[in-house]
Amino acid sequence: MLEKTRELIRSKQYNQLKEMLSDIQAPDIAMLLDELTPLEIPLVFRLLPKELAAEVFVYIKNDNQEMLIKNFSDSELKDVFGDLYMDDIVDILEEMPASVVKRILAQTGSETRATINQLLQYGSESAGSIMTTEYVGLKSGMTVKQAFDKIRKQGLDSETVYTCYVTAADRKLLGAISIRTLLLADPDDVIDDIMEDNVISVKTGDDREFVANQMKKYDFVAMPVVDNENRLVGIVTIDDAVDVIEDETEEDFALMAGIQPDDSEDSYLDTPVLVHAKNRIMWLLFLMLSATFTGLIITKYQDKLLTIPILTSFIPMLMDTGGNCGSQSSTVVIRGLALNELSAKDLLKVIFKEMRISLVVGAILAVVNSVRIFIMYHNSTEFATASIAVVVGITLMLTVLVSKIVGCTLPIIASKLRLDPAIMAAPLITTIVDACSILIFFNIAAMLLNI
Amino acid sequence: MLEKTRELIRSKQYNQLKEMLSDIQAPDIAMLLDELTPLEIPLVFRLLPKELAAEVFVYIKNDNQEMLIKNFSDSELKDVFGDLYMDDIVDILEEMPASVVKRILAQTGSETRATINQLLQYGSESAGSIMTTEYVGLKSGMTVKQAFDKIRKQGLDSETVYTCYVTAADRKLLGAISIRTLLLADPDDVIDDIMEDNVISVKTGDDREFVANQMKKYDFVAMPVVDNENRLVGIVTIDDAVDVIEDETEEDFALMAGIQPDDSEDSYLDTPVLVHAKNRIMWLLFLMLSATFTGLIITKYQDKLLTIPILTSFIPMLMDTGGNCGSQSSTVVIRGLALNELSAKDLLKVIFKEMRISLVVGAILAVVNSVRIFIMYHNSTEFATASIAVVVGITLMLTVLVSKIVGCTLPIIASKLRLDPAIMAAPLITTIVDACSILIFFNIAAMLLNI
Repeated sequence: MLEKTRELIRSKQYNQLKEMLSDIQAPDIAMLLDELTPLEIPLVFRLLPKELAAEVFVYIKNDNQEMLIKNFSDSELKDVFGDLYMDDIVDILEEMPASVVKRILAQTGSETRATINQLLQYGSESAGSIMTTEYVGLKSGMTVKQAFDKIRKQGLDSETVYTCYVTAADRKLLGAISIRTLLLADPDDVIDDIMEDNVISVKTGDDREFVANQMKKYDFVAMPVVDNENRLVGIVTIDDAVDVIEDETEEDFALMAGIQPDDSEDSYLDTPVLVHAKNRIMWLLFLMLSATFTGLIITKYQDKLLTIPILTSFIPMLMDTGGNCGSQSSTVVIRGLALNELSAKDLLKVIFKEMRISLVVGAILAVVNSVRIFIMYHNSTEFATASIAVVVGITLMLTVLVSKIVGCTLPIIASKLRLDPAIMAAPLITTIVDACSILIFFNIAAMLLNI
Repeated sequence: MLEKTRELIRSKQYNQLKEMLSDIQAPDIAMLLDELTPLEIPLVFRLLPKELAAEVFVYIKNDNQEMLIKNFSDSELKDVFGDLYMDDIVDILEEMPASVVKRILAQTGSETRATINQLLQYGSESAGSIMTTEYVGLKSGMTVKQAFDKIRKQGLDSETVYTCYVTAADRKLLGAISIRTLLLADPDDVIDDIMEDNVISVKTGDDREFVANQMKKYDFVAMPVVDNENRLVGIVTIDDAVDVIEDETEEDFALMAGIQPDDSEDSYLDTPVLVHAKNRIMWLLFLMLSATFTGLIITKYQDKLLTIPILTSFIPMLMDTGGNCGSQSSTVVIRGLALNELSAKDLLKVIFKEMRISLVVGAILAVVNSVRIFIMYHNSTEFATASIAVVVGITLMLTVLVSKIVGCTLPIIASKLRLDPAIMAAPLITTIVDACSILIFFNIAAMLLNI
């Protein structure tokens, strides 16, 4: 497709290009544009019919949006932004430098400008920041016929017409009614009689993740957003809720790998090397310096290590197993908390469960490892194979137990302290558990081997 | 709520309980039921009005669904399952023992039974397995007025009425039309003239993750599913797509923590200890035995370690830093692949990027670590602090480089081999990188310290 587009540009066959583009969906056109050069993009963009152009604009990369805006005449700017939904405008403005924002606002009507400024003020993690003001609002007392008239009038400009919201004269939210219900009703029915009056809504200040989770829980395609006086101010649509879920998941994945999440929507390849490095270095430094602590423990027990040098060779296995057990537990608990399957009050239940899992898992690992030690070292003359196997086996069982308890406890404590539990993931747990496993190992060895 | 429900049951105030339940949304009633005892659940369930009962039934836990089914009379069974959507029925049947499935199928009409059997045959990861057959199908040539008549007739039974699909006489998919377009059109317009004929669809055998990603990409609330002859056979609705995204994400989280994902939808606390242990032990065993390899390397270099014992104390720090760097890289690459931001052909670009990141990150870590060594050991008489700092610094830089290259390469290779890239995550990378970092350390030390 890219090749063909370039070919058509080169040979100036713009009509054919136009025709080709009319068969492609907006997100695909946007992907195509993002692969073109800064000289080709405006040329191809201008071939798109007005409405499609606005839709495509939403999907292209921030850099290219900015480049196009700078390229637009004032009337082009008005055309594109006139066709966008409020939430998309706000999303775009949030990524633009102040000068560009100013120019865009200058091209919008004063009413739109007021709405945009209002929306820009909501915190970036709030329901207000992802809602749109373009919904179908019905007034209490309307008949089904009047409702349809309103939908036909507002429909083209609303982001969704599937659920309409019914408000009182003072804009207080009274109920919701789906277009399905309206279609199946008698034209003379009063909407108040057939609407769902037991309506779930969120507040502008609610966390956007909470909103997305509520929509998922109730299988909503749109969620009404009200202010503190229960007045309807906007709706959140399912596509934005899906994006929020995705964003929050990405944040968790990043944190759980020891990467500082950033708000940029750039893909991996588009993010500059220095930004990648910046996002990663903090955790690496912190964890590297923390690991020094484990090193100090080893230094302290050095004399004992020198007596039976083979002990050193078990350090990586014990550290890794502890780390893996700990990150297994922390991951399941972090996900349980994120999905609201677990809460802080379950701490004791979780610890009890992880303890029982540790017994099963630890016993199996200890047995398998003893077998391995016998196979590898049964001819050894330097040390008593059986004692070593026992020491390592007991250490393994205790390490698994401690790792799993640390792994499941820290995320829950973090959530109690209103921190993101995801910071208590594999990297941090591993570092803590390393020190524990080495301590356990040397103490057990000192006790049982009399060193 | 739970307390109040129990109180009302105890005092037999069923009418009041009924009234209380009528103010609660189905998912919340389901959560309430799941907290009650097996004796209370059927009692409360039977208080629900017929339609709400079916809706609630979908949301309750599998165990309780099974218990209720066994409790139902044949006519109750017919009532509940008669009000469910096909995809929900199939979801439930897939979790039930054969005897229960048989009883349910016996209570459904022969046509429904045929559809259910058809749906049960699609692979569990396919589009067919998550689609529903209840959509509004319009015939080519209909007018807008006829379309609305059809919607009114089919609407109650369709899972969504927001997008209707237009088919030819041979059931081939011709186009899609939203209810918004229909509402804004003239009643005498022919739908073929106003429908979107450039319609995106998926095939029954397509992977369900692909379907969910397509819906996210195009912001669809429903996606038509066709067979190999392009005949429309069903639709996937956005709520099911969201569930798929969630499932796949959970699978990745599990794999990336070295846990075997299972298909059960039980929450953490509902999963038995032995199942948890089973899901975790495989990776732990494999990784424990692999870590033996790192131990062997240490054994091989034991003599050198004995010359300068302080070297041992750097092992945890080097292993951890390598592991952390590797899992950072593997996580970003695994997510990039999952979100289709990266593909196998980007391998060289990714490696080049990770190499540059490594240089920045490695240099900073090496400098900070040298400073730390000077501060901690500047009075040492046992070894030359400067040489040790240089050895550890160079090792750190090389370890970061190798870890990041291994971390970014393995997931891409896995995706080339059509394996899930998520298996190449932190635990496996850590084990591989451990061995590398120890090898690098001892070789650099041997070279520079002449041991």
